[in-house]
Amino acid sequence: MASATPLLKDELDIVIPTIRNLDFLEMWRPFFQPYHLIIVQDGDPSKTIRVPEGFDYELYNRNDINRVLGPKASCISFKDSACRCFGYMVSKKKYIYTIDDDCFVAKDPSGKDINALEQHIKNLLSPSTPFFFNTLYDPYRDGADFVRGYPFSLREGVPTAVSHGLWLNIPDYDAPTQLVKPLERNKRYVDAILTIPKGTLFPMCGMNLAFDRELIGPAMYFGLMGDGQPIGRYDDMWAGWCTKVITDHLGLGVKTGLPYIWHSKASNPFVNLKKEYNGIFWQEELIPFFQSVSLPKDATTVQKCYLELAKQVRAKLGKVDAYFNKLADSMVTWIEAWDELNPPKGGVATANGPPKK
Amino acid sequence: MASATPLLKDELDIVIPTIRNLDFLEMWRPFFQPYHLIIVQDGDPSKTIRVPEGFDYELYNRNDINRVLGPKASCISFKDSACRCFGYMVSKKKYIYTIDDDCFVAKDPSGKDINALEQHIKNLLSPSTPFFFNTLYDPYRDGADFVRGYPFSLREGVPTAVSHGLWLNIPDYDAPTQLVKPLERNKRYVDAILTIPKGTLFPMCGMNLAFDRELIGPAMYFGLMGDGQPIGRYDDMWAGWCTKVITDHLGLGVKTGLPYIWHSKASNPFVNLKKEYNGIFWQEELIPFFQSVSLPKDATTVQKCYLELAKQVRAKLGKVDAYFNKLADSMVTWIEAWDELNPPKGGVATANGPPKK
Repeated sequence: MASATPLLKDELDIVIPTIRNLDFLEMWRPFFQPYHLIIVQDGDPSKTIRVPEGFDYELYNRNDINRVLGPKASCISFKDSACRCFGYMVSKKKYIYTIDDDCFVAKDPSGKDINALEQHIKNLLSPSTPFFFNTLYDPYRDGADFVRGYPFSLREGVPTAVSHGLWLNIPDYDAPTQLVKPLERNKRYVDAILTIPKGTLFPMCGMNLAFDRELIGPAMYFGLMGDGQPIGRYDDMWAGWCTKVITDHLGLGVKTGLPYIWHSKASNPFVNLKKEYNGIFWQEELIPFFQSVSLPKDATTVQKCYLELAKQVRAKLGKVDAYFNKLADSMVTWIEAWDELNPPKGGVATANGPPKK
Repeated sequence: MASATPLLKDELDIVIPTIRNLDFLEMWRPFFQPYHLIIVQDGDPSKTIRVPEGFDYELYNRNDINRVLGPKASCISFKDSACRCFGYMVSKKKYIYTIDDDCFVAKDPSGKDINALEQHIKNLLSPSTPFFFNTLYDPYRDGADFVRGYPFSLREGVPTAVSHGLWLNIPDYDAPTQLVKPLERNKRYVDAILTIPKGTLFPMCGMNLAFDRELIGPAMYFGLMGDGQPIGRYDDMWAGWCTKVITDHLGLGVKTGLPYIWHSKASNPFVNLKKEYNGIFWQEELIPFFQSVSLPKDATTVQKCYLELAKQVRAKLGKVDAYFNKLADSMVTWIEAWDELNPPKGGVATANGPPKK
């Protein structure tokens, strides 16, 4: 790791939804060992997850989630990697990096192992530029800057809340595209990071994602997926749409691009299709909804924004499917649970009512 | 040139504002010779521009512009590369590629010469995706596609009106950045093309730019710069802001990224500062203006949009400086001249009045 990049060792947790093979952590050992891991077991709690020696970790299975959250555990998905957001909630750190267990260390074009975490930290610690597009991509990178015609008043940028990393090898395709292009591999290393402009939605993938918990944590709810739900594989998408609308409202930035990880294995497209088909259909209503959401001026915290969003989900998406009423309830429960586990510092008033001291 | 890409030999003109050295065309000969060149001499008409043998070209100096346009020639800048837009107007082709004479053939990371024109053609012939961001960049490129979570209803895209290429070596910086970073070179080859999202403005550089004249030509006015004007080096920026607002309104796309050219020579930052200082200042008012411009529903052609924009420039920017009243007049003159030289096919009504047959 270049000496110029702070490690943020005591300020970042790595959240992993489950670990099915020991190779995963062995491969990442040089980069992950300095950090604390939060593993949220996504399936049967009676099964044991083995963690290689030398890692500092805490592991939560379903029983633990029920114990910690009580009845509010209903907002956390079961038998789905969406359960990872429980890890965001119990973390006490400023930053989160979340990664799937089928994502390995990728190599850059020179053949060097990519330290994905280091690049995410760089992304999160440098500003974003959501108000105007810079044609040379991230103006804060070495060897780059703002180009001619970029307004000087916008060159300070805004704080970066999210760093969305990409994937070499198996691209993150939906089931129909997987079925149509079973052999397609992503071989293109695009040496860029860019800010997703204000007002533009994007498909946020949870495979290789970092964010600033203090800035945006409560918006990173991965919804109700998996066991007992009519939808899967939209957990990260949902979180991404909510997050983007809220970062836009609060004047925060979202970056995408580097770092790459090596996505080793395509999930089964037939299983995926079963999980996705409702989402593929509903999405056509969800995107116009999120594109037209307007948050009130007095929504000045992530929590307030999120509760307002829950209200609008119920009002406008409930008629698409009753599932969205349940999801809206869970969004509220999620915020209640978040605030319980993360009481505001110094007794600042929250969206839920008077200051808790 | 890969056989898969149409050459568009009879459908594209190359517009060059001036040619100060013979090397320029010699270097581009393998790629440019199949095309017709339109050279618009930007300085003293008594000087002779030499064009190497074997090129098919027409050359216009100031006297020619005055002869062709009569009093309407007032809308074309003198002693400034902004005069190139006269070439867009006299062309009879569907596509335009414009390039500066200090831009040479760049090499890709494998060391191969980049055929910039071929890449621009690819960009213009494939759709754009302005309504939703695709994290794997241009979904229409080989080896790429729309990622999970991209709405299926948006996957047809929209026609691409503009292809904005980039520059290796000397980046396109403003004078203050040039002064602060005299040694900075752009060495990063970013292997990406992407659509600039709807609602987002960008700094369009005229150094390496292609567009579809039929879709957006009348918006590509490079304004009043150079001799007798209080501003320079904002010609392409002005065209870019107008163009982006109009493509957004008309549902067209703007792409940026590949291809790269090799920008050989930094212009003098002290001279540039003198040209730019008003622009740097005014730009702070121009960006909010363009960000909030709204075009009426009945503005269904580029000409109608542009005339409406001219009206708003006069109404809202006239108070920033009297220059903008003059510019608004010139915008109207430009459209009148455009329509005179490009009478609507089949007598379709234009923004200027009844059908001309």
